Amino acid sequence: MKKFSQSLDHAAIIKIIPALWQGDKNIELNSVCEPHEADGKSIIFCEQERLLDEVKASSAGLVITNPAFKDRLGDRPLLIVEKPYFSFTVLVDHWLKLDDTDHEFQIHPTAVIDPSVRFEGEASIGAYVCIGANAFLGNGVRIAEGCSVAANVSIASGTRLFPRVTIYESCQIGKNCIFHSGVVIGADGFGYQVFGGKQQKIPQVGNVIIGDEVEIGPNTTIDRATLGSTVVGNGTKIDNLVQIGHNCEIGQHSILCAQVGLAGSTIVGDFVYLAGQVGAAGHITIGSGAMIGAQSGIVSDVPEKARYFGSPATDANQAKRLVVAQKYLPEMLRAYQKTLKDKNND
Amino acid sequence: MKKFSQSLDHAAIIKIIPALWQGDKNIELNSVCEPHEADGKSIIFCEQERLLDEVKASSAGLVITNPAFKDRLGDRPLLIVEKPYFSFTVLVDHWLKLDDTDHEFQIHPTAVIDPSVRFEGEASIGAYVCIGANAFLGNGVRIAEGCSVAANVSIASGTRLFPRVTIYESCQIGKNCIFHSGVVIGADGFGYQVFGGKQQKIPQVGNVIIGDEVEIGPNTTIDRATLGSTVVGNGTKIDNLVQIGHNCEIGQHSILCAQVGLAGSTIVGDFVYLAGQVGAAGHITIGSGAMIGAQSGIVSDVPEKARYFGSPATDANQAKRLVVAQKYLPEMLRAYQKTLKDKNND
Amino acid sequence: MKKFSQSLDHAAIIKIIPALWQGDKNIELNSVCEPHEADGKSIIFCEQERLLDEVKASSAGLVITNPAFKDRLGDRPLLIVEKPYFSFTVLVDHWLKLDDTDHEFQIHPTAVIDPSVRFEGEASIGAYVCIGANAFLGNGVRIAEGCSVAANVSIASGTRLFPRVTIYESCQIGKNCIFHSGVVIGADGFGYQVFGGKQQKIPQVGNVIIGDEVEIGPNTTIDRATLGSTVVGNGTKIDNLVQIGHNCEIGQHSILCAQVGLAGSTIVGDFVYLAGQVGAAGHITIGSGAMIGAQSGIVSDVPEKARYFGSPATDANQAKRLVVAQKYLPEMLRAYQKTLKDKNND
Repeated sequence: MKKFSQSLDHAAIIKIIPALWQGDKNIELNSVCEPHEADGKSIIFCEQERLLDEVKASSAGLVITNPAFKDRLGDRPLLIVEKPYFSFTVLVDHWLKLDDTDHEFQIHPTAVIDPSVRFEGEASIGAYVCIGANAFLGNGVRIAEGCSVAANVSIASGTRLFPRVTIYESCQIGKNCIFHSGVVIGADGFGYQVFGGKQQKIPQVGNVIIGDEVEIGPNTTIDRATLGSTVVGNGTKIDNLVQIGHNCEIGQHSILCAQVGLAGSTIVGDFVYLAGQVGAAGHITIGSGAMIGAQSGIVSDVPEKARYFGSPATDANQAKRLVVAQKYLPEMLRAYQKTLKDKNND
Repeated sequence: MKKFSQSLDHAAIIKIIPALWQGDKNIELNSVCEPHEADGKSIIFCEQERLLDEVKASSAGLVITNPAFKDRLGDRPLLIVEKPYFSFTVLVDHWLKLDDTDHEFQIHPTAVIDPSVRFEGEASIGAYVCIGANAFLGNGVRIAEGCSVAANVSIASGTRLFPRVTIYESCQIGKNCIFHSGVVIGADGFGYQVFGGKQQKIPQVGNVIIGDEVEIGPNTTIDRATLGSTVVGNGTKIDNLVQIGHNCEIGQHSILCAQVGLAGSTIVGDFVYLAGQVGAAGHITIGSGAMIGAQSGIVSDVPEKARYFGSPATDANQAKRLVVAQKYLPEMLRAYQKTLKDKNND
Repeated sequence: MKKFSQSLDHAAIIKIIPALWQGDKNIELNSVCEPHEADGKSIIFCEQERLLDEVKASSAGLVITNPAFKDRLGDRPLLIVEKPYFSFTVLVDHWLKLDDTDHEFQIHPTAVIDPSVRFEGEASIGAYVCIGANAFLGNGVRIAEGCSVAANVSIASGTRLFPRVTIYESCQIGKNCIFHSGVVIGADGFGYQVFGGKQQKIPQVGNVIIGDEVEIGPNTTIDRATLGSTVVGNGTKIDNLVQIGHNCEIGQHSILCAQVGLAGSTIVGDFVYLAGQVGAAGHITIGSGAMIGAQSGIVSDVPEKARYFGSPATDANQAKRLVVAQKYLPEMLRAYQKTLKDKNND
């Protein structure tokens, strides 16, 4: 159960979700949760027939539901909307922001901040944070405990780093990003050339540029470019334990699920969807709007809006036909071997 | 070589492993190791014919072995048991715990601990740890340097966090757990809905609940639930770099090997074995006792006690037949193409 | 653009790259970058026909190029070499080292260093670093903020740890290594045996030994041996989010790309190349010089210098034939089913 520090009454809720209220308006609510966890001050939602019994049995103070269910949930207060789950998420999002206005911007006395760091306005900096020379922090930036922000990094307004994020020198982070714990931005790209009987490091002197409203999951790593920049576009969301190699360029509003790995110089368009554990070879382009199935291995360019899966990945229809046909392969082999035997016996 | 601070003599060893002692009892031992590293104060074990020469050449002060080898290892002291390796591990485990009684519970002066944190009893808190408001720490909890424990987290008695573990707010951790360095528990689940031309974040206001005696490898991430809880049952062991998505429910005593990835709302039973790099789609159930081969991609429910592998994963017997049949596929293709050509020539 | 704190003039550059200089020698340069980012003080390189227009349009002060292009880049200063990119990387590498001579060895007052730690010479230790009892730090070691180095660890001369690296007790690190942020060395190997109805931990009392000049990418984890040592040989380079299990032995100058996972006791030779997301089962040997394609699953020994791919991985030629043949499988199935039907109709 998520309890909020500020309660909401009928008027506050209707202001966020202007919709039909059915039942008692004289209530105060302070939490959201699943039906079985609810108490009289909880808000839940109901939009699936299969959860109806659970909702009926719930003690929730308010149910957000749709017209189809409005007469099937007893006489408790209801908020009647077209898309209950969507409205519920909008409400929770507003509520989190209301609570968040409590946030006091503070710089912890243990933070080690180079005197040359420039602040655009207010910022929160947690305990044991280190910020290097000439870094820039936009207005409203929040950096939790234990983060490391190297020299010449810029972080634009509203961006939030959870504990123990590392950003290497000269990387640029956009506005209103969220980086979860353990993210590492800007470590050296992985490049070597064999010379004199050993792997010689190719110097990695580019950086990483992250756009606005990018969210990055815990322990994901994005390497700096060899030269130039590794780029992640506005609004792209990256899950946990993802690897993005040097000089990749990822477009806007794309989704990279957990454990995706992109080799160096991969180009990813806008609104691309890469499911979990997808790998992509370097120096290829995945067109905008493409969707790639889980565990796929992308070895060549993917057209815009294509659906691909498999390793090596191919057009999804072709890949599905392969998966179906493979079920018959052992039987086909037996038939083939029988034919061979019959021939030999002739 | 592992050296212990406390030595063991004949009496102490026999107390831990009550078994037949052969040879000199007047010895003191202080380490365990592999045969080639051993000195006169080392304990080693021997249960494999192929390692016999190495054991004979070893300087070890005591060999734990089985009756079959007892006359083949010279006249050095032997401890004769049925399962040498198992007894050896039991001994090492006891010895580690003996040494560990040296542990002094201490709170490092640099730890930033909110005044509202509740302690059940003694606890160790390392340098530069941060613990948020209303957190609860059970008796005997040990938190190494650089960890971050957010507000309203509870950690039950005996649990140990290695350096730089992060636990987000309101998560609940059971008794006698071990979390290795870099683990992140309770970061936001990965959920967005496209609205207004961009990916809108679905608020993630659930938590993570971890049972007792759960061990989690370094840099593994377990996301908080959207609503409700992501759950890991008692005794489950999770290896390195594993990703567990929001609202997953994992049973008891299961094994998740390195780099496994579970999408959101995956249900995993008890005593399930997921080998390395396995991926599972969301909203499916893997039955208790199931064993899934490495790199498998699980896309639908797996029955209890089933053996599955492949991507997409199928019953292991079927998957093995496919692997075998694939070896003949190029030959079958040539035969098929010849038939086609012959037909066309007719 | 990478700006250096020290400028280079004609004489300094010719000393690093002794080659033919064409054009004005009276210049000072202070950066390297891509052609479109360059200003009059930048050095770029040109060796590809397709980038010629971009180079011509660039404001770069010096272009490193080959004899074929020397008359096609206008009258700007050129450095004429056989392999422009290689010479460029050599120059950048020297330049980084020149800049680095500025480094002042310092121990941050917040570092928590056990009094028993031994220093071979100078070392840099950042803020909030913790170093345990009896650790050894070689001359010139640099440990960035937030690292955790446990008791009895030794780190040889010239090695550099980026922020928030963890090294567990008794591990040994060679000379001139680079460990990126979030690396975890020496956490417990993943070993359990079911006993008394639950997973009992097998104690992990070995260590990790890393050779000289090993580079390890962010958030990679290398587990300690159960007994003995997990070993990484000199000059081996390991990318991000790689998992190396307990008791693995990796040779020299090998390349492990991102998200590779090695189960316990895997043996890897010298100059082996494991592409991204490769998995290897335990207790197998990958011979020296072998190259394994991305996402492969290695389930048995791989001969020296072999080329393998696929899951399960096989000889690359065989694997390629399988990939090609799979394209025809759906068609072959239709033909096979037609034959069956025709037979049944006979």
